[in-house]
Amino acid sequence: MKVISGGEVKELRALWREGEEIVFIDQRMLPHKLVFYRASSLKEATVAIREMIVRGAPAIGAAGALSLALSHRWGVDLQEAYHRLKETRPTAYDLFYALDRIRSVMKDDLEGGVVEAERYIEEVVERCRRIGEAGEELLEDGARVLTHCNAGALATVDWGTALAPIRMASRRGRKVFVWVDETRPWLQGSRLTSWELMGEGIEHRIIADNAAGHLMQRGEVDLVIVGADRITPGGDVANKIGTLEKAVLAREFGVPFYVAAPISTFDPSLKDWRDIPIEERREEEVLGFGGVKVAPEGARAKNPSFDVTPAKYITAYITELGVIGKDEIKRYLKEVG
Amino acid sequence: MKVISGGEVKELRALWREGEEIVFIDQRMLPHKLVFYRASSLKEATVAIREMIVRGAPAIGAAGALSLALSHRWGVDLQEAYHRLKETRPTAYDLFYALDRIRSVMKDDLEGGVVEAERYIEEVVERCRRIGEAGEELLEDGARVLTHCNAGALATVDWGTALAPIRMASRRGRKVFVWVDETRPWLQGSRLTSWELMGEGIEHRIIADNAAGHLMQRGEVDLVIVGADRITPGGDVANKIGTLEKAVLAREFGVPFYVAAPISTFDPSLKDWRDIPIEERREEEVLGFGGVKVAPEGARAKNPSFDVTPAKYITAYITELGVIGKDEIKRYLKEVG
Repeated sequence: MKVISGGEVKELRALWREGEEIVFIDQRMLPHKLVFYRASSLKEATVAIREMIVRGAPAIGAAGALSLALSHRWGVDLQEAYHRLKETRPTAYDLFYALDRIRSVMKDDLEGGVVEAERYIEEVVERCRRIGEAGEELLEDGARVLTHCNAGALATVDWGTALAPIRMASRRGRKVFVWVDETRPWLQGSRLTSWELMGEGIEHRIIADNAAGHLMQRGEVDLVIVGADRITPGGDVANKIGTLEKAVLAREFGVPFYVAAPISTFDPSLKDWRDIPIEERREEEVLGFGGVKVAPEGARAKNPSFDVTPAKYITAYITELGVIGKDEIKRYLKEVG
Repeated sequence: MKVISGGEVKELRALWREGEEIVFIDQRMLPHKLVFYRASSLKEATVAIREMIVRGAPAIGAAGALSLALSHRWGVDLQEAYHRLKETRPTAYDLFYALDRIRSVMKDDLEGGVVEAERYIEEVVERCRRIGEAGEELLEDGARVLTHCNAGALATVDWGTALAPIRMASRRGRKVFVWVDETRPWLQGSRLTSWELMGEGIEHRIIADNAAGHLMQRGEVDLVIVGADRITPGGDVANKIGTLEKAVLAREFGVPFYVAAPISTFDPSLKDWRDIPIEERREEEVLGFGGVKVAPEGARAKNPSFDVTPAKYITAYITELGVIGKDEIKRYLKEVG
């Protein structure tokens, strides 16, 4: 991704390995400061995932893969590392997939984990680039896209999922305009998506999540693209809280609604959207922001971090294998195994 | 309304007259501090309205009425005061109604404005109490209501519109639970509605606006009650940004959606919802949160402050004349003149 730092534009990734350390862009500090967090122990790595120094399903998967690969060098038993990493975030299917894959290599070859993790990360990035290729055709010159949360390079190591088609269309010279849902409570939209779009020089406006319906009603949104944390074989999508709202509104106002995600996000083990556990996060995230308390003393909140959007609200899925309809998901899953 | 102050419960209103001053609860300081703002000039009164020291259509109407009534004592010409007050907030129909009513009395009797303004305010409060009477029957014991923004006593001098049925049911001993949309960007829900509910001892949880759809989908919302700034004779409702989203979601998930408002909120001059001007407020409200800047340096926002919910999403209107359907609006408007 292009990042503006000290007046210069640089190419960076959300995380990478340096020797026995993992370096993360500390996403908690964005957009005001570009600060790096270095993990050189399993504890520091689990903190990075749990405290959302790194977030977004594919980037969490990448962080998990590298962490597990380095765990024996950090002096932690493979099984223990596997379990401690697995319990950091309960909804991220990519994490489970990555951990299983790295563990299966490490069972026979402890040192082989690092090569496998870096191969995995290159695959993640390449898949996102292909999602960009597949999805950019949906964006005509002048298209006005609405996106929710941050399904960008920060969330996927590079390129992004929902942002990949936007990035690709822009790099190919097309003009794209983005409505950025601020995405309460954690404000991934105004803090991260806007920051990524600034780096790429893509025109955008941040809106309160409440304004998306109004803009759709007035014909100011041509399409919606969001990411996904987990998708059932039937096409139901678990993603950041509020995704369901935007999807229902998009259908109501005749706006196409796309979910951009690698095939690995589809989870064949899920029978039904009701099987997807919904992470509840701290009440404090809703009661204030950035250390500023908003609600009255003693007030309580409820803070579900994800919701599930049933397939009927989704126009199509932008994957590394192309833009596919919900009826095609099972066939593709069979092909990829 | 019941207000907790220094550990005691007191009965207060959102604003009242003391001699030649208007005293306001300064709503910008809530919920952390109960501070009063005193206006003893037209300038201070217009600041109170424009800067949202007082907000909510009926309370703005009351503030406008008292301000116009006192304007000649403050040494301002009637016409000038009328126009300066009218341009403080462009969407609030109650304000225009109140100003017209007080001006028509003052044209013949400058001093008569104060009596008329106070009569008007008592009518506003009594109408809200009756909205409470009419609407409380919708709330069974244990009902879980979702509300958006603050259509409470702070917004209407006393009782509230959307909160009046909730307050009334609670005072009559029924258990009511409220989901409070935090209501970005200005956070009227987490700052004001929660504060009012704390005073009344009504159980509630604050949620990110993004979570309302999820809770409806999971069957955790029995009904929605919101207020209104202006309503067309066809039943289309202008209200705080995000109302449209909640209404579309409520219909989608089979949750009854009520709009609580006095008959004076219905504006016979509006042919169509497209006639309602939508106030755009400062970008900074979206770019930050509670005074903390969130978005990257140089990022832009769009901040429409209201949206319009077409009548088809609305179950019924809770008014001082009872709960009425959209087909009955025109008949009632004719009766009231």
